[in-house]
Amino acid sequence: RREVKNKNSDIGIVRGLAWTAVGGDTLEIEVNTMPGKGELKLTGSMGDVMKESAMIALSYVRSITEKGKYKVDIDFFEKHNIHIHIPEGATPKDGPSAGVTLATGILSAVTGIKVFANLAMTGEITLRGKVLAIGGLKEKLLAAKAAKITKVLVPIDNEKDIEEFDEEILEGMEIVYVKNMLEVLDNSLDI
Amino acid sequence: RREVKNKNSDIGIVRGLAWTAVGGDTLEIEVNTMPGKGELKLTGSMGDVMKESAMIALSYVRSITEKGKYKVDIDFFEKHNIHIHIPEGATPKDGPSAGVTLATGILSAVTGIKVFANLAMTGEITLRGKVLAIGGLKEKLLAAKAAKITKVLVPIDNEKDIEEFDEEILEGMEIVYVKNMLEVLDNSLDI
Amino acid sequence: RREVKNKNSDIGIVRGLAWTAVGGDTLEIEVNTMPGKGELKLTGSMGDVMKESAMIALSYVRSITEKGKYKVDIDFFEKHNIHIHIPEGATPKDGPSAGVTLATGILSAVTGIKVFANLAMTGEITLRGKVLAIGGLKEKLLAAKAAKITKVLVPIDNEKDIEEFDEEILEGMEIVYVKNMLEVLDNSLDI
Amino acid sequence: RREVKNKNSDIGIVRGLAWTAVGGDTLEIEVNTMPGKGELKLTGSMGDVMKESAMIALSYVRSITEKGKYKVDIDFFEKHNIHIHIPEGATPKDGPSAGVTLATGILSAVTGIKVFANLAMTGEITLRGKVLAIGGLKEKLLAAKAAKITKVLVPIDNEKDIEEFDEEILEGMEIVYVKNMLEVLDNSLDI
Amino acid sequence: RREVKNKNSDIGIVRGLAWTAVGGDTLEIEVNTMPGKGELKLTGSMGDVMKESAMIALSYVRSITEKGKYKVDIDFFEKHNIHIHIPEGATPKDGPSAGVTLATGILSAVTGIKVFANLAMTGEITLRGKVLAIGGLKEKLLAAKAAKITKVLVPIDNEKDIEEFDEEILEGMEIVYVKNMLEVLDNSLDI
Amino acid sequence: RREVKNKNSDIGIVRGLAWTAVGGDTLEIEVNTMPGKGELKLTGSMGDVMKESAMIALSYVRSITEKGKYKVDIDFFEKHNIHIHIPEGATPKDGPSAGVTLATGILSAVTGIKVFANLAMTGEITLRGKVLAIGGLKEKLLAAKAAKITKVLVPIDNEKDIEEFDEEILEGMEIVYVKNMLEVLDNSLDI
Ligand SMILES: [Ca+2]
Ligand SMILES: [Ca+2]
Ligand SMILES: [Ca+2]
Ligand SMILES: [Ca+2]
Ligand SMILES: [Ca+2]
Ligand SMILES: [Ca+2]
Ligand SMILES: [Ca+2]
Ligand SMILES: [Ca+2]
Ligand SMILES: [Ca+2]
Ligand SMILES: [Ca+2]
Ligand SMILES: [Ca+2]
Ligand SMILES: [Ca+2]
Repeated sequence: RREVKNKNSDIGIVRGLAWTAVGGDTLEIEVNTMPGKGELKLTGSMGDVMKESAMIALSYVRSITEKGKYKVDIDFFEKHNIHIHIPEGATPKDGPSAGVTLATGILSAVTGIKVFANLAMTGEITLRGKVLAIGGLKEKLLAAKAAKITKVLVPIDNEKDIEEFDEEILEGMEIVYVKNMLEVLDNSLDI
Repeated sequence: RREVKNKNSDIGIVRGLAWTAVGGDTLEIEVNTMPGKGELKLTGSMGDVMKESAMIALSYVRSITEKGKYKVDIDFFEKHNIHIHIPEGATPKDGPSAGVTLATGILSAVTGIKVFANLAMTGEITLRGKVLAIGGLKEKLLAAKAAKITKVLVPIDNEKDIEEFDEEILEGMEIVYVKNMLEVLDNSLDI
Repeated sequence: RREVKNKNSDIGIVRGLAWTAVGGDTLEIEVNTMPGKGELKLTGSMGDVMKESAMIALSYVRSITEKGKYKVDIDFFEKHNIHIHIPEGATPKDGPSAGVTLATGILSAVTGIKVFANLAMTGEITLRGKVLAIGGLKEKLLAAKAAKITKVLVPIDNEKDIEEFDEEILEGMEIVYVKNMLEVLDNSLDI
Repeated sequence: RREVKNKNSDIGIVRGLAWTAVGGDTLEIEVNTMPGKGELKLTGSMGDVMKESAMIALSYVRSITEKGKYKVDIDFFEKHNIHIHIPEGATPKDGPSAGVTLATGILSAVTGIKVFANLAMTGEITLRGKVLAIGGLKEKLLAAKAAKITKVLVPIDNEKDIEEFDEEILEGMEIVYVKNMLEVLDNSLDI
Repeated sequence: RREVKNKNSDIGIVRGLAWTAVGGDTLEIEVNTMPGKGELKLTGSMGDVMKESAMIALSYVRSITEKGKYKVDIDFFEKHNIHIHIPEGATPKDGPSAGVTLATGILSAVTGIKVFANLAMTGEITLRGKVLAIGGLKEKLLAAKAAKITKVLVPIDNEKDIEEFDEEILEGMEIVYVKNMLEVLDNSLDI
Repeated sequence: RREVKNKNSDIGIVRGLAWTAVGGDTLEIEVNTMPGKGELKLTGSMGDVMKESAMIALSYVRSITEKGKYKVDIDFFEKHNIHIHIPEGATPKDGPSAGVTLATGILSAVTGIKVFANLAMTGEITLRGKVLAIGGLKEKLLAAKAAKITKVLVPIDNEKDIEEFDEEILEGMEIVYVKNMLEVLDNSLDI
């Protein structure tokens, strides 16, 4: 069964797009913070590459919250644990393409800024916030459409893939090409 | 041999429903707390997905006990260990469907609020407390009935499954559909 | 070669009963405490289920020593290590049926109360101290008899098994049916 | 798809050269630092030998930042975590030949000195900063050329390999032979 | 090549007896202590059962050094590491029969009392210091003889085995039967 | 490709001899120290037996630096990490015969005393500093000769092996037989 999007913006919840054996799917990434010793807890049957994506996303978020508009208390990360879960718990998930989603979820959770609910995103993230191309885009967009998503953030390096798709696939969905995380955040945070 | 329900409400004990190779079964989840360094100890031959469920349940409980009617001392979780056991110890158990039961047990143990004894429940939990659909419901309900359970909490997304069951299965049991943990707690805690 | 029972009550030593490939056997569980950081050290080639039994036994003992007649200093468990060994070291051991024996041994070691030497016991333990049924009872009782044990504690849920045994097996041994750990302790501690 | 070089010098980013099943490739190593307890976090699907290279690179950098022109605060390394990532996250990477690149990236990140963007490098590093020969040089140089790299640092012990290559391969690229890390740093840091 | 015994009593060095695929052998167990956080370091390619023997030996020694003639400073064990090595490093070793040797070596190292050099020993140890029977005794005694050992400590439960051996095997060696560690220490420590 | 010896004495660098599938080889062991919490970091694709050798070497060095001519500050080892690397990083290495080399390198690194550069050594080390015989000596000596080594330290128990070699093998190299680490240090440290 497919989930439909949440009705309202929320803190620490971001919609990602996955490519599975049975087609595309949407993944609602959840991020929560709590007092602790700086541990990163990852649940949802994540594979090693996805766990590394979460570590990269966290390091990136730490680097951009040192100062500037997303500034967070200097010792927040050392005095809190961050728990990231991706339902459904029994479904194995892997790959680097949830990177931007994980980073957006963490930033939202640690700043308290809401994420737009009508939005989904996909893209590998690097430590410096560059967004890298991903695979399975057609299936992911079909899943986004089925979930009534109206705006999808896609890595700029995937632009040429989309140009080859049927127009119908994109109908009713705005595609925004992003080349780095700051663009992802500009498009997804409800400031 | 099947257990029958406890006679009285108790703290930190909740009846879950499991679906095994030999049919449905009831699982009496036990939660205990003790002074410690914030460790989560899990026993009862739990598999990886069930262990992750317990981590999710604990994070959820921490998030709703920060304030409000289930408020717990701010450093309780950092100064106590939580031990969750599911008898029988030699029987391997896995899957996400004990999520709501684990969360209810933890909340009861950390607040000291009793859980009704005539009650069983099943459902995957997310980090935000959403209750997701589970499988094997018919077998689980038969097991609940055999254990003299009179009220069962079921994920709202499983409602359509139940509509297809024989009426006899449900006879003498009240089914309550739940969509999130707050509804689970409203129905299970003896406040 | 079979061991015979100790002559005198002792602290931290309890006789359990095991069911092995070559028949029943008695296991002399040893528990020692020493200053430390709250670690539980387990030796004697224990399998995973038996190690979890020891964790359950320890949590149970901690819960009943918070106050009441078995009261122990509040920070004893955080400032001591507990070492449980089951000879013989090279023989692999597993299963949940040493639960009551482990709990009795721990309670004896942390309170300094002696355990009767003429006694053996078997039973799975839950976190709340309920005693659950175990298997291989006939072989276990034969081993107890061979070791000159005169009193055996057996889970109440195994009563129906014993009713089917030859009378000879039980000759000279008192069988005490127990449904929870408090009954086990009432029968085994030399207060 | 192949990346082209960054346009500007940057802190904590260094271009390495890899030799894969499908030919040479460039690897953009990213290093970030953040307050922490001295942990080294490694992501990018690195194999064991590459992880050890990162440990060696870090120890080397610590030894040369104790004093002299790259001096770093005495307790910087104990009060910060260092995260090294090599995109793309799903591609397994291994071998010792990223040693010099890892060390340069770490030194840049901890000192804040930029690394030239037109530069790539390859070479195993030892704990004392000696640069050892590597394999697959021809494929690596072809990849550097394709990425518009204009200067490549190569271990001096590989000089004889290069003398056997076609001149075309090297056209437009300056090759600098290095025998230790100090020479690598002299050529790569934008002081 | 076989080692011959040391000429003089020494601290922290005890001769054990092993039974290998190619016959009996002597093992010179070495124990050293150094300031630390209470860790037990084990080297010499020890198997799991032998590592557990070392843990048992250490717990036993801690219990008998709390007071009495072997008394050791109350926090010695928490402020020192204990390193036990059994040469030769590349030879895998396992089994519980080095228990008494390990305990004697640890006691010698922590008290500074020398162990007689003309002595070898074999026997499993329990947490309470009981000495249990071991196997391969004939081969072990032949190895002891070849190493010019003049006195061997043997578990009392192995007495019946020795009665069946040729007298020649024992010629020139005193056999002392021991039933617990205190007897082992009485015979081996050079007080 | 074979390395030739360093030109000058150095701190924390010692030449060992290895016996590989393709003949003998020299191994330049590097040891570095840095402020830390007493961790031992081992790189260079070391196998388990070689890692244990490093632990033994470190414990030995700690024991002889408590006082006497190699005295080191009492809490040096608890306030520093020690990193040992053996190039080349991708070549798996194992066995106990680098023991004396590891110990010499550690002692040099922690005392700041240089090691002679014209020297190589081989030998297993025990916790008390005894030097045990090793294998593959002929191949090792050939490798030492090829690397222009002029003095080789060899375990005294290997003397009989050398007596059987062709004189040519030893030509131009001084062989020093050692029976313990103090002799190794007397011959290798540039005091
Ligand atoms: Ca789904
Ligand atoms: Ca929170
Ligand atoms: Ca059951
Ligand atoms: Ca409690
Ligand atoms: Ca037995
Ligand atoms: Ca004690
Ligand atoms: Ca690439
Ligand atoms: Ca930073
Ligand atoms: Ca030997
Ligand atoms: Ca010492
Ligand atoms: Ca070499
Ligand atoms: Ca240093």
